Amino acid sequence: MARVVVEVMLKPEILDPQGQAISRKLPQMGFEGVTAVRQGKRFEIELDGPADEDAVERIRELAGTLLANPVIEDFEVHAE
Amino acid sequence: MARVVVEVMLKPEILDPQGQAISRKLPQMGFEGVTAVRQGKRFEIELDGPADEDAVERIRELAGTLLANPVIEDFEVHAE
Repeated sequence: MARVVVEVMLKPEILDPQGQAISRKLPQMGFEGVTAVRQGKRFEIELDGPADEDAVERIRELAGTLLANPVIEDFEVHAE
Repeated sequence: MARVVVEVMLKPEILDPQGQAISRKLPQMGFEGVTAVRQGKRFEIELDGPADEDAVERIRELAGTLLANPVIEDFEVHAE
């Protein structure tokens, strides 16, 4: 059993209204010092084999088709 | 400028229909060897000061009230 993690975030140039809403709310809650918040997705993928380079590469292909939209999102894949 | 990351995942005992839907779809796409997928959230928080222990601790409090629902979700906070 091994785990591979995929992190998907909107590209920097894409507006993130969810993150902006959180960022705006913080000063009202007495929380100063935050300049920006971005919200993205995290996938934990459990494998029945090892999380070797081949598995990570296959999940990278998967992420680009099923988990992320490469037009508006960047993603990173790593074994954990 | 420093960044703190908050990762929010459903607790293991909470059903994750989104993750299950992805997991079920994989064999149809020719992708074998995945035993489970869990989907969660990732927040990237940009600070105008350093991401020191104090800042991480304040964001940990914030995460438990604004970013995660501790009844059904676990979260981790770390400087990046």
